[in-house]
Amino acid sequence: MSYGYGGYGGPPAPPGYGAPGGYGGGFVPAHAPPPPGADPQLWSHFIAVDQDRSGAISAVELERALVNGNWTPFDLDTVKLLMNIFDTDRSGTIGFNEFAGLWKYIKDWQNVFAHFDRDRSGTIDEQEMRNALGQFGYNLSPQLMHLLQMKFASDLRTTGRAANGISFDRFVRACVVVKQITDSFRRLDTDRDGWVQINYDQFMHTVLSLP
Amino acid sequence: MSYGYGGYGGPPAPPGYGAPGGYGGGFVPAHAPPPPGADPQLWSHFIAVDQDRSGAISAVELERALVNGNWTPFDLDTVKLLMNIFDTDRSGTIGFNEFAGLWKYIKDWQNVFAHFDRDRSGTIDEQEMRNALGQFGYNLSPQLMHLLQMKFASDLRTTGRAANGISFDRFVRACVVVKQITDSFRRLDTDRDGWVQINYDQFMHTVLSLP
Repeated sequence: MSYGYGGYGGPPAPPGYGAPGGYGGGFVPAHAPPPPGADPQLWSHFIAVDQDRSGAISAVELERALVNGNWTPFDLDTVKLLMNIFDTDRSGTIGFNEFAGLWKYIKDWQNVFAHFDRDRSGTIDEQEMRNALGQFGYNLSPQLMHLLQMKFASDLRTTGRAANGISFDRFVRACVVVKQITDSFRRLDTDRDGWVQINYDQFMHTVLSLP
Repeated sequence: MSYGYGGYGGPPAPPGYGAPGGYGGGFVPAHAPPPPGADPQLWSHFIAVDQDRSGAISAVELERALVNGNWTPFDLDTVKLLMNIFDTDRSGTIGFNEFAGLWKYIKDWQNVFAHFDRDRSGTIDEQEMRNALGQFGYNLSPQLMHLLQMKFASDLRTTGRAANGISFDRFVRACVVVKQITDSFRRLDTDRDGWVQINYDQFMHTVLSLP
């Protein structure tokens, strides 16, 4: 089973790629050599995603490179989440140094996903999600667990009351959403009594900051 | 410019479709006649979306039938929003009576979208979004407006600090999110002082109920 990144052999090398020159045009320029000290393996992943060989990964290139285990593309909202976390200099692209963090993040989440997908179905069902959140230290009521599962379920084949499995990219987003809501709540709950006072602007800000 | 539904001629009629019989197999069965009193135009739209001629529209069929003005598909979350609203009997499919409501809903939103897309770009920019929400009676601060635009912007071509345009399907979702947050807040703000007291479960419930 494969999770996360797909197509990692990269595109087939165009004719003349890496060759010393050529004429008649049409060759894609060879990619620049890796920066000194760069992990060669990581560099090969980076240039496979950087399809236009610009030296940086655009959000569109990132979107193209990311697939779930069942080959469905990542949601736009998950691609934006990743750009928001790893485009640290807000250039609109992911440079090689930023890519190292992104690569590790995806790898770590792949391991988490594989660990909790006990039945190897390729998606996380409600019981698996409960186990995952429990291990992360979140204790949601059965009602909230069901609501979370309904919200992030990715399989349209059956809908209605049943909650389906959650694909890799939406699993990451679900976990980030639960963490962010909990963190926001704790930040507001200064006296730790389980209740917060919040105004409309804060309320809206908290929600609109979620991925 | 076209918004919303696409491919509304439906699939090309298979050989023998509508013909009196035929032999050798492979013909898609002709669709049942419209229910008595049904709007013939609406029925023709319904059977175009109901591609397997089951008499009901599945979420997958709905997803296939819906495109934005720029031909991008609707987000999974918007398809789920529509199923949640219009699959009123929670059968997992949209019957013809439910479809009438869905069709009107999309049509109405298309008109709203076209009205506020002043520059006819096919997406809603931050100023257009401010106008729309203002007309709906929502008065968000400039900071919240920007956050909303960043969250729902659908164009990955430039990201970073700039907020891009919002496609039709994400515009609908953005408006529903603002309405739901505001309604939830008002319900909690019983003394109308602009502040609410809320516990962790209520907080999480409010957020996870958003589309």
